[in-house]
Amino acid sequence: MVIANLIDGDGIQRGVHNFLVPLRCMQTHKLLTGVTTGDIGPKIGYNVMDNGYARFDHVEIPRRHMAMRFATVDEQGKYAKKHVSDAASKIAYITMMQVRAHICVEAGKNLAMACTIVTRYSAVRRQGFQSAETDSSTTEERQILDYTQQQHRILPLIAATYCFFFTGKIIQTRLADIESRLVSSSQHGKNVVTKPEVADIHASTSGLKSYMTTVAANGIEDCRKACGGHGFLQCSGLPELLTTYLQSPTVEGDNHMLPQQVVKVLLKIVQAVQHQNGVSDFVSCDSYHLVPSLQSIIHTDARRGSGKTAGSETCPASCEKDMQDLDTLCCAFRHVAARLLIECSRQMQTAIVKHGKTPDDAWNDALVQMARVSRAYSQFLLLNNFLHGINQEERDAKSCIGVAEVAMLRDLARLLALYWIESEVGDFLQDGYLSARQADWVRASVLHTLTVVRPNAVALVDARDFSDFRLKSALGRYDGNVYPAILEAARRDPLNQTEPGPGYEEHLKRLIVGGVGVYTGTASRL
Amino acid sequence: MVIANLIDGDGIQRGVHNFLVPLRCMQTHKLLTGVTTGDIGPKIGYNVMDNGYARFDHVEIPRRHMAMRFATVDEQGKYAKKHVSDAASKIAYITMMQVRAHICVEAGKNLAMACTIVTRYSAVRRQGFQSAETDSSTTEERQILDYTQQQHRILPLIAATYCFFFTGKIIQTRLADIESRLVSSSQHGKNVVTKPEVADIHASTSGLKSYMTTVAANGIEDCRKACGGHGFLQCSGLPELLTTYLQSPTVEGDNHMLPQQVVKVLLKIVQAVQHQNGVSDFVSCDSYHLVPSLQSIIHTDARRGSGKTAGSETCPASCEKDMQDLDTLCCAFRHVAARLLIECSRQMQTAIVKHGKTPDDAWNDALVQMARVSRAYSQFLLLNNFLHGINQEERDAKSCIGVAEVAMLRDLARLLALYWIESEVGDFLQDGYLSARQADWVRASVLHTLTVVRPNAVALVDARDFSDFRLKSALGRYDGNVYPAILEAARRDPLNQTEPGPGYEEHLKRLIVGGVGVYTGTASRL
Repeated sequence: MVIANLIDGDGIQRGVHNFLVPLRCMQTHKLLTGVTTGDIGPKIGYNVMDNGYARFDHVEIPRRHMAMRFATVDEQGKYAKKHVSDAASKIAYITMMQVRAHICVEAGKNLAMACTIVTRYSAVRRQGFQSAETDSSTTEERQILDYTQQQHRILPLIAATYCFFFTGKIIQTRLADIESRLVSSSQHGKNVVTKPEVADIHASTSGLKSYMTTVAANGIEDCRKACGGHGFLQCSGLPELLTTYLQSPTVEGDNHMLPQQVVKVLLKIVQAVQHQNGVSDFVSCDSYHLVPSLQSIIHTDARRGSGKTAGSETCPASCEKDMQDLDTLCCAFRHVAARLLIECSRQMQTAIVKHGKTPDDAWNDALVQMARVSRAYSQFLLLNNFLHGINQEERDAKSCIGVAEVAMLRDLARLLALYWIESEVGDFLQDGYLSARQADWVRASVLHTLTVVRPNAVALVDARDFSDFRLKSALGRYDGNVYPAILEAARRDPLNQTEPGPGYEEHLKRLIVGGVGVYTGTASRL
Repeated sequence: MVIANLIDGDGIQRGVHNFLVPLRCMQTHKLLTGVTTGDIGPKIGYNVMDNGYARFDHVEIPRRHMAMRFATVDEQGKYAKKHVSDAASKIAYITMMQVRAHICVEAGKNLAMACTIVTRYSAVRRQGFQSAETDSSTTEERQILDYTQQQHRILPLIAATYCFFFTGKIIQTRLADIESRLVSSSQHGKNVVTKPEVADIHASTSGLKSYMTTVAANGIEDCRKACGGHGFLQCSGLPELLTTYLQSPTVEGDNHMLPQQVVKVLLKIVQAVQHQNGVSDFVSCDSYHLVPSLQSIIHTDARRGSGKTAGSETCPASCEKDMQDLDTLCCAFRHVAARLLIECSRQMQTAIVKHGKTPDDAWNDALVQMARVSRAYSQFLLLNNFLHGINQEERDAKSCIGVAEVAMLRDLARLLALYWIESEVGDFLQDGYLSARQADWVRASVLHTLTVVRPNAVALVDARDFSDFRLKSALGRYDGNVYPAILEAARRDPLNQTEPGPGYEEHLKRLIVGGVGVYTGTASRL
């Protein structure tokens, strides 16, 4: 399938369309006239796939090789667009969104594989004695998973994998629902899917793809680093997992480009709240969740007559325990997403109105802020979906998990939310939504929640049930026999197949046996 | 050289010492009795090096193979330590510190190579038109280096490479000076190097090794991602650069372990300030720079009688321009490093005194905070060294750089400092050192400084003068002929050496030519 600019019979450019273009003869497998192709060459990972390049020089194809669902070219070369409903015209985007949703699901799986390896290894690997005074009877060193900083690296990532699991499931369900409604609306000619709804799921999948693959790619690499020197070995399974995963932040909309898609859509709901007009159009949208915070910030600021973003919202937590309340945490993310969004909108308006910038330049200057908005909004969606997913499991009589598992999932959601606040605490402090004291509670709560999750760490990764065959990791084996497996892997190295190793007879021997004589400088040899 | 536990003739364990252990026969190159070795197997990178493993089973070596500079074993198996001065006993650590300093220098070089590739590519690569309304005469797309978010990813990294260059030079000079004084003090039997001084350079090199290699490893990968899909290609040069560099955060003290070394040393100066006793012992130390902030925080808090860390220091900037003042920025980092250090100290004291934890557990609970201290302290040192290095160049009559270059270096220092504050703005907001308004100025100043640095971006990477041979990158070529170079690299792929590619005759042909017949299900074939 070639995506190419269509120039019709009248010489008019009609923009990109899809065409089936045969590359090779079906009989001889020879490249057809005008076609050049090849493999693009070795990559950092994903080398099992022969990604190719293709070049076309005056290649002719039959007219019917154009994909003509939404536009046609007739035998006279006349171009025509088919008339479809507004929403149904968006159906082509559904595939793109489904691919992005699939990438979100895969982000969770890949990160979960890395977490499985590092968690099992961190339970097997021991290093460092407790001080002799504390407990002189201990002869075994500590499991490295008992060091707070190792927990701080790994446990929030485990939490993220569960969050990604539920979020992925929810988006896929929602997309399937929208798709079936779109199909039926295009068949029956009436809109049962609204334009804001399609735009909204586009924004959500764009933001989530960008944020989730960033977390997964960085997370897999941090899992690798958290295995120390052994994570540097191919036999740990982590290098292949990482390098092949590294395509995900780039493909299907580069992670640094997608925030623009998110903000473009979200600005519409900001306008609706600002003008108190059409807010109800967004009622079935993800972005509708932001409305309470948007209203609070916009209307409070308007009353104050100041250009500053603050609003009347502040975090209600009055002790460390309060700070761990899931609804409280969720509201904090809602507030920050809304505040950063409004600031982004104001930044562009100020640039245009006050500083006379072109809309293009104002947009360009706001790109860094857009990345912040997209991240904050995605964190809000993820937390919201995670909690929603847990509630569904709790209510579902057929769910395979029980009360203890639901409680554990809530602990993971709590850890993740607290950890994310801690990582971007400036966003929460800047406008006074969190006080300095509350920020301290967040940090203390992270440490506390790590100790709550720690006893279940191994069980939480085992529950994902990746086979040893799939993990292909000497460090992440289910049976924990790490060290014999590392040695076994090393023995398979070609360098270890001969004794002495390759090159001795040809090169080294004459330098060692009998020596090469006394060094007399280079001059005498010339 | 084997580092092993020495058990002397009386059966007493004397801890780790160094021993020369021959592995192979000098005549036959056969492994000696009791020795097993091999290559550790393929790694994520650095595969040109055959890192090996070795196992020893009752291997005997002559007594004189022990390295006996600081301790001896006589022919009767009696162990004795040589008496050396306190400072001279530290001389053995100098090598470790020199290795860490070397790693710091290399961090700058490797990151600079990645920056060279991504910056040149971002100047060649064009994508996206300005809106038609803005400028309809433009037929060329934009250089991607003109997008703010691309600048935000790359330019602070370029600034870091210059900062690392000056910092590396300064540490190496200081280490060489300490070493020569240590040698002369061990020869003349008197201390010309103080214990705090040796401990201090140990803390600095530990913190800097940890932080600089983290920045370099993450930075190289971000440069790779910033090249989009082309950065995924081996021919970009970035995958090999990255994967081989990835050893650096792990070797010579894992980056997540080193902060403990930093804090262990820095706590001594906190105590000295607290008890107003012995502060002058630190006068030639890096950590001495923290004293004004430590004093302000400790004594103000004591007067207030509160356990909260605040102090009387606040940022004096009263407009956006003020916020870009280099001394102002440097003071901000000093304050944050001092505040986080004091909080870390208080956290441990509270845990022990109030909550009855063992010192071991209190230390373990503080590991996450120690990482923050080490990062903040390293940022302060880096900025301080950078500014110091620029001042030296400015004063040096023999310097090869002029007024314009000095000004540009100061712009880089400014960008780096502002960018680091922006990234960790919570640390600056938490105790009110920065106000919300000042934090806004920081963000605005980052954007402003990006536009100041942008015109010199390519020159700044060209100035490092890496040859094309060294970069081995189709994207980072000096001549900018990126696209022919990518195609040329792809053509060298073994898959592209035959037409059609490998496997067609053996496997594909029978599936394509003539087909394989009509599918009749698996049942009928059994």
